[in-house]
Amino acid sequence: MKIEHLGIAVKSLQEADDLFARLLGKENYKHESVEREGVITSFYNVGDSKIELLEASNPESPISKFIEKRGEGIHHIAFGVDNILDEIERLKGLGFVFISEEPKDGADNKRVVFLHPKCTNGVLVELCQEK
Amino acid sequence: MKIEHLGIAVKSLQEADDLFARLLGKENYKHESVEREGVITSFYNVGDSKIELLEASNPESPISKFIEKRGEGIHHIAFGVDNILDEIERLKGLGFVFISEEPKDGADNKRVVFLHPKCTNGVLVELCQEK
Repeated sequence: MKIEHLGIAVKSLQEADDLFARLLGKENYKHESVEREGVITSFYNVGDSKIELLEASNPESPISKFIEKRGEGIHHIAFGVDNILDEIERLKGLGFVFISEEPKDGADNKRVVFLHPKCTNGVLVELCQEK
Repeated sequence: MKIEHLGIAVKSLQEADDLFARLLGKENYKHESVEREGVITSFYNVGDSKIELLEASNPESPISKFIEKRGEGIHHIAFGVDNILDEIERLKGLGFVFISEEPKDGADNKRVVFLHPKCTNGVLVELCQEK
């Protein structure tokens, strides 16, 4: 398990890209839209991990709702795992609750699931596996 | 630059340690108190990065105030750098604002500074360098 990426909710991807390129001293390596999740993303390599900026692509997006409630900021942490189905089984066996137990296609060529923040100290935790 | 660690504010380190040990499938490698910051910390290795759980050690602690305002959750992201003074100069030159420009002793054998979240999209960003 490693920190695959950290998701950050932003109002304007254009402004945030300008900011994070200066902060990290490098440009993003891609923009990618995930329509099912209502987000447009921007990815930066940082060491062995990534930063994923997330802008809402519609007012019903989870990112719109997050920003309305809490403002811009860190939205989720994603742990990269080798076998997402095994990891879901392991965590279910330990009492963790998933928002949905079925991995879905996420950004950056991944299969992803989210744990419910009520069982993880208010932290939205994603598990992801390279497709 | 790499993601050195991710700081997570928790109400009870004992309960959070139990939770994160199950989530990550491993025990923490240390507890450490940082009196000047009013925190007790617990560290977990995750790949090339770390998770730092933070419990307030007094009611005036920044962690108490964070939890009062936002609840438990991700508190900051720390980027590890080779030369913190050079990095402070680079970022000041680009218009970034620091909460304090003078590195201080932090947990886990580090010199640390924090950028002001108003200049980083609401994200509390720490820079840290191994002592």
